[in-house]
Amino acid sequence: MSYPNGKLSEEKVFKDPVHRYIHVRDKLIWDLIGTPEFQRLRRIRQLGTTYLTFHGAEHSRFNHSLGVYEIIRRIIDDVFYERPQWDQNERLLSLCAALLHDLGHGPFSHAFEKVFHLDHEEFTRAIILGNTGINKVLLQMGADFPKKVAEVIAKTYENKLVVSLISSQIDADRMDYLQRDAYFTGVSYGHFDMERILRVMRPREDQVVIKKSGMHAVEDYIMSRYQMYWQVYFHPVSRSAEVILTKILHRAKHLYKDGYLFKTEPKHFYSLYNDQITVEDYLKLDESIILYYFQAWMEEEDTVLSDLCHRFVDRNLFQYVEFNPHLQMQQWLELIQLFKKAGIDPDYYLVLDSSSDLPYDFYRPGEEEERLPIHLQMPNGELRELSRESEIVEAISGKRRTDHKLYFPQDIIEDFSSKRKVKEQILEILKKPY
Amino acid sequence: MSYPNGKLSEEKVFKDPVHRYIHVRDKLIWDLIGTPEFQRLRRIRQLGTTYLTFHGAEHSRFNHSLGVYEIIRRIIDDVFYERPQWDQNERLLSLCAALLHDLGHGPFSHAFEKVFHLDHEEFTRAIILGNTGINKVLLQMGADFPKKVAEVIAKTYENKLVVSLISSQIDADRMDYLQRDAYFTGVSYGHFDMERILRVMRPREDQVVIKKSGMHAVEDYIMSRYQMYWQVYFHPVSRSAEVILTKILHRAKHLYKDGYLFKTEPKHFYSLYNDQITVEDYLKLDESIILYYFQAWMEEEDTVLSDLCHRFVDRNLFQYVEFNPHLQMQQWLELIQLFKKAGIDPDYYLVLDSSSDLPYDFYRPGEEEERLPIHLQMPNGELRELSRESEIVEAISGKRRTDHKLYFPQDIIEDFSSKRKVKEQILEILKKPY
Amino acid sequence: MSYPNGKLSEEKVFKDPVHRYIHVRDKLIWDLIGTPEFQRLRRIRQLGTTYLTFHGAEHSRFNHSLGVYEIIRRIIDDVFYERPQWDQNERLLSLCAALLHDLGHGPFSHAFEKVFHLDHEEFTRAIILGNTGINKVLLQMGADFPKKVAEVIAKTYENKLVVSLISSQIDADRMDYLQRDAYFTGVSYGHFDMERILRVMRPREDQVVIKKSGMHAVEDYIMSRYQMYWQVYFHPVSRSAEVILTKILHRAKHLYKDGYLFKTEPKHFYSLYNDQITVEDYLKLDESIILYYFQAWMEEEDTVLSDLCHRFVDRNLFQYVEFNPHLQMQQWLELIQLFKKAGIDPDYYLVLDSSSDLPYDFYRPGEEEERLPIHLQMPNGELRELSRESEIVEAISGKRRTDHKLYFPQDIIEDFSSKRKVKEQILEILKKPY
Amino acid sequence: MSYPNGKLSEEKVFKDPVHRYIHVRDKLIWDLIGTPEFQRLRRIRQLGTTYLTFHGAEHSRFNHSLGVYEIIRRIIDDVFYERPQWDQNERLLSLCAALLHDLGHGPFSHAFEKVFHLDHEEFTRAIILGNTGINKVLLQMGADFPKKVAEVIAKTYENKLVVSLISSQIDADRMDYLQRDAYFTGVSYGHFDMERILRVMRPREDQVVIKKSGMHAVEDYIMSRYQMYWQVYFHPVSRSAEVILTKILHRAKHLYKDGYLFKTEPKHFYSLYNDQITVEDYLKLDESIILYYFQAWMEEEDTVLSDLCHRFVDRNLFQYVEFNPHLQMQQWLELIQLFKKAGIDPDYYLVLDSSSDLPYDFYRPGEEEERLPIHLQMPNGELRELSRESEIVEAISGKRRTDHKLYFPQDIIEDFSSKRKVKEQILEILKKPY
Repeated sequence: MSYPNGKLSEEKVFKDPVHRYIHVRDKLIWDLIGTPEFQRLRRIRQLGTTYLTFHGAEHSRFNHSLGVYEIIRRIIDDVFYERPQWDQNERLLSLCAALLHDLGHGPFSHAFEKVFHLDHEEFTRAIILGNTGINKVLLQMGADFPKKVAEVIAKTYENKLVVSLISSQIDADRMDYLQRDAYFTGVSYGHFDMERILRVMRPREDQVVIKKSGMHAVEDYIMSRYQMYWQVYFHPVSRSAEVILTKILHRAKHLYKDGYLFKTEPKHFYSLYNDQITVEDYLKLDESIILYYFQAWMEEEDTVLSDLCHRFVDRNLFQYVEFNPHLQMQQWLELIQLFKKAGIDPDYYLVLDSSSDLPYDFYRPGEEEERLPIHLQMPNGELRELSRESEIVEAISGKRRTDHKLYFPQDIIEDFSSKRKVKEQILEILKKPY
Repeated sequence: MSYPNGKLSEEKVFKDPVHRYIHVRDKLIWDLIGTPEFQRLRRIRQLGTTYLTFHGAEHSRFNHSLGVYEIIRRIIDDVFYERPQWDQNERLLSLCAALLHDLGHGPFSHAFEKVFHLDHEEFTRAIILGNTGINKVLLQMGADFPKKVAEVIAKTYENKLVVSLISSQIDADRMDYLQRDAYFTGVSYGHFDMERILRVMRPREDQVVIKKSGMHAVEDYIMSRYQMYWQVYFHPVSRSAEVILTKILHRAKHLYKDGYLFKTEPKHFYSLYNDQITVEDYLKLDESIILYYFQAWMEEEDTVLSDLCHRFVDRNLFQYVEFNPHLQMQQWLELIQLFKKAGIDPDYYLVLDSSSDLPYDFYRPGEEEERLPIHLQMPNGELRELSRESEIVEAISGKRRTDHKLYFPQDIIEDFSSKRKVKEQILEILKKPY
Repeated sequence: MSYPNGKLSEEKVFKDPVHRYIHVRDKLIWDLIGTPEFQRLRRIRQLGTTYLTFHGAEHSRFNHSLGVYEIIRRIIDDVFYERPQWDQNERLLSLCAALLHDLGHGPFSHAFEKVFHLDHEEFTRAIILGNTGINKVLLQMGADFPKKVAEVIAKTYENKLVVSLISSQIDADRMDYLQRDAYFTGVSYGHFDMERILRVMRPREDQVVIKKSGMHAVEDYIMSRYQMYWQVYFHPVSRSAEVILTKILHRAKHLYKDGYLFKTEPKHFYSLYNDQITVEDYLKLDESIILYYFQAWMEEEDTVLSDLCHRFVDRNLFQYVEFNPHLQMQQWLELIQLFKKAGIDPDYYLVLDSSSDLPYDFYRPGEEEERLPIHLQMPNGELRELSRESEIVEAISGKRRTDHKLYFPQDIIEDFSSKRKVKEQILEILKKPY
Repeated sequence: MSYPNGKLSEEKVFKDPVHRYIHVRDKLIWDLIGTPEFQRLRRIRQLGTTYLTFHGAEHSRFNHSLGVYEIIRRIIDDVFYERPQWDQNERLLSLCAALLHDLGHGPFSHAFEKVFHLDHEEFTRAIILGNTGINKVLLQMGADFPKKVAEVIAKTYENKLVVSLISSQIDADRMDYLQRDAYFTGVSYGHFDMERILRVMRPREDQVVIKKSGMHAVEDYIMSRYQMYWQVYFHPVSRSAEVILTKILHRAKHLYKDGYLFKTEPKHFYSLYNDQITVEDYLKLDESIILYYFQAWMEEEDTVLSDLCHRFVDRNLFQYVEFNPHLQMQQWLELIQLFKKAGIDPDYYLVLDSSSDLPYDFYRPGEEEERLPIHLQMPNGELRELSRESEIVEAISGKRRTDHKLYFPQDIIEDFSSKRKVKEQILEILKKPY
């Protein structure tokens, strides 16, 4: 150790399929990558259950975190360097925030967070500030350096330019994951001219802006994002897997609280169940651990738990139909009754799931989740909000799209040999979408 | 179920980054993919420990198996179809053998096989012929169908044309993995014109041959293979991870045999340790299970086991130097003594590892591992062995290249505060390669 | 010769950077490609003057024509084949129409057509029906075959399904040129999942429709088209070159009509000047001929002609500013006066140019240029117009975007040493865009 | 103008399909690109007649020249910068030599040079040193700057490191054209990891060397080169077109010397015919001019000239057989007699053509065409010649491969209705290759 600004005697590179090479010259960055907390990201997939739909999507958050770092490094070293609005002292801070922004993700993170009411950003902060390898490395830069890194990630850091570099509607995080997820899934969405976007990024007092001449590349990026959301991230088959995953986690917790005697006890989950999770416990959780339990639980006595684990592990997912809970309340209630009548627990086997996305939004101060709009820098230096210049972006700006699906186990329903009537009634309702 | 030759009502496709789409029209194939034994391949990486060197290489054998199937499907449906030498009745058999050829791979397969003296091909056969989901599906095609599939994979099937389609020096297996591993690692080797090679493949009585006009594409494929072996598959950093993995498996077995009391007992390994492994037990092993144990064992009392597990999980690997055991016997013996003097067990911490490849070989009947040579079909119909026509292939044909490395934990050696002299002696020897 | 349905003894392939290979099995197609009229397309660039902006865009219409043929071949042979709505007898007709649809393009075609009031579609028909190599080959298929090919291209053929395959808002022509022009320019727009679109195309009575499940791939295609128009096809620098080209053609014609004595007489243009152009004369025109004249005319006495030719050949183009003729009528008139005062002929040196595109349009019967909308085929077989299902397409549907630019020779204006005041007045106006 | 070291107020970029973007920051480079002599390279194809075989290969030398410049720029600015062995004062000189190294190429250059006994390198020098736009720009850098640029290109410049950057067995010229020609033809050869090679290039006193760790990337480059030579550059169909081209140029000269009265006089060729070619005349020659004449000469009275021109323009090429002039002297003489008997002039219609390549060579001092070998820099700083370290390179090193073909007009021979016997004799010989 011993920095600051220490350089490696020779640059290290990682071969990366998306950015060709990832370049590391700073000893600080190299040491961060070598910590156990950062290496743990190798055991957490970037896209959770998506690999059950797109088999190529087996890449980890380790991959993506390096990618975000590399993009920020290029912006700073190739584009911002020596521009008066950019303070070179923020360089290493920005690189660390980029590299570490996803550190707190748990296994299958969205499902996991929802079930246990966790927030991965809180864990990111806790890992950065706690008694960890990461913290030890960061401290070499000064006593308040870890705190500053955490603030950048939390968007509370005073230099808003640095914050907007890391999180905005066109940040390095999004630019990396769109391209990376497109690459590994193999879909033909997700392409845009990142090199051009990087070249037209300009630092301003409190935000990164885009030169007007790069507007079309940004439009392309926004369309890519839109397509990736609906074609990949919200794919109904991946959501089916996520629904099952969520129900497994719920069931196991329920059984634990209920005093059920597990053959394979959920030791890694105890502190979660008792709301006493520590950073140390949290860091022990990753997807290999989860898959270990799910495979073990396939042999539990509890048929709901074992059935759901079998479904997840062997990829025997739920079917789905479009179903609008607002318009189909009556059918919903009927289905619940019919499932109960058939002896299937609707809490676990009849699941409504909704996805929703806002492809781009202009600034709405005071709203729940404030999103910084993208600003174009006109030739005369003036800034204009993107949707006022781009017809395409204007057309989709601020328009939320939502999709509702109802998930259920078709195979179980079709197996009802003794309850033919209930089966027919259920199938009748499921066949008639609104 | 209920085949044979049953078609799906609509073709299914898998999005694949290498072949764009994988097409499934046969109900048989669809059902095989849906079995738990095939889904298990999602939990076994294609390239074992390589992801610790090339972070993109996180893809699974599931991926690759679909790819091999797709290549064979194209050869049969687009190239061989209606050619007199091709017996269309072998189509489904060939597709099944292609899809299932890797079914018996264990977690981190090469290391695993070596430590436990297993053979993945035997397990492939056992899974196909045993009481499994795979077997049940295959039986729909006839009572002897599973046996025929196993025979094709074992290269004992009577129709040698089918065998050579699945395994030869230019088979679908190799064509898929070269391209796929290149794609996921991101290296620029591994490219060759597969579409051209497929177009010039011709069925003959007992083998697949290549039209002379496609010779250059085949040369390119052989060079790709050569480069992938040395640049990716034998990369010394991946081998370092494999060395550690092997030593962990050895250590745990040794401790078990020794009566050591594990905090986390190696239950999944008992039948392996006692040479009583069954297909059912074997199928429970995958890489998430291995990683579960390795993480748990980081907390064992045994310092060798816990240290090695830490190294693997946190990627703190061994360093290496070139070391030729034949020429450096003396240094080797000295090092062993010095390691013992320093209190480090050379059985676990001083490891010689050799890699060796034969990029292409002509036919050498009776030799240990017979390899079918590649034959070119000349315009007049005559066959000529590739290395007689291609100067480049001739130049490398039959030439085995071997590489020896010595692995050791540099960090431990450099930490010898109390044994400075031993440390210096060790470093002295390690610095002077032959 | 001697067809119909004659097959080549062995399939011929062309290596193509966009579609990998172009496959020809029909003797008819092979012979058409070999005609002088088709080979002439090698001497006409696909993108006219665009190579002066994007230096990679040097590809010819020969390239593109083969590409369109290949796409239609795949649709028919891989997707439509054996579907009841598709009449296999239309196969060769469709392939010929695809291959020949651009046959009548002149050198730098849009500029050329505008100046001489020609219509390339008329020439396509004339070449197909006239005394040409093409006609001779087509006649082998029957006396009325050339006429049918011409009708398909003219969209008057009775089988509207065939017509819509060749020309619609999502036809093979557009799918090829978007991808091809993206490939050769190197821009990152122009990508969409054509393989997916081909797979979801379905023949209906009177049009090709798209299965609903392929809607997102179609959205992506429409966005690609939009971006290519504004980023490549309407690029202001290419338009500057086209403006100069147009003015050269005008000037030479004007001089001819005026009795000017050329050093290099415009022999190839005489019949054009006299409105007596024949198919035979027309076929002698290509871009090497045009460039020959332009280079020769750099040495003419007439300074307008020689200056403009120098500008085109040496790529010394006009500058431009945004200029709205509707809002800036006054400045326009002033500029004309100032140019005259400065002794520069505004007819040749002050040029307004407008570009305009409608990215997608639903059906508007009776309108000037009727465009067939894209129809989605819903799971129940019903058809719905694309913009009613896709929010993104709806957002841009029917919205025409227009861009006005004013072109002028900055270098000449800045050279006004003796007329400093006029120069300042001109620059003043040009600097203040609306 | 007014340099040295003048920078553009804003960096200019060219979109390039091979290197993504080409970056220009130096005013000197920008001005050189804008000269008429450099723009002329847009009218000369990079691969001569290859576009008649690979239709995508329509790219110009303008393209390639920018590419070579960009590679050198990256080496200097990203890799050599601040290394002690590199003299930063050589930067602009190296960039100019890179950009201008192909300036003297004539239309269809190899054929052209052969017929008229020209040397494009001499013309490159003459353009740099003569009264040209290029010279005027270069002079801004100092009175002896043009001379230095010419010396670098001629390999006589005193700083051999600069020379080896521009011309060696692994120089920017080769790296660009292999990738570029692969891209435009669409073949899958020509790929290698240039980015890696650039990263391991190191400046030494008198040459560029390659770090040992990059050896495999260099092997891959050498194999790419080998494949491109035999698959693309020496493709027998392109050679057929070149044979015809050569014969046209010979015929026209012969007719001129003979006093033949041309309908279209070869004015552009007069000074060539009379061995009085000047730089000014030479610069007027490009491929549009050549194609103008060839099209015009299709209507000459002389049937040899008009037939050959028709063949070239309409791509009706000669057929070929393998033919070894050393082993088949007798057949050769017989064929000449038979052609004469049949009334076909063997000087124009029976052409032997040989191609030959040496994929890599170690250093052979004093030999005709000295080639600098590639040196690897070992970890200890020592240099070793590539073929001593790489088995693959050793295998092909110094081995020249030659290919002989005999070209003839099959269509004419098959048309011999009145001379059936001569025809049969000719076909008999042509069918029996050695």
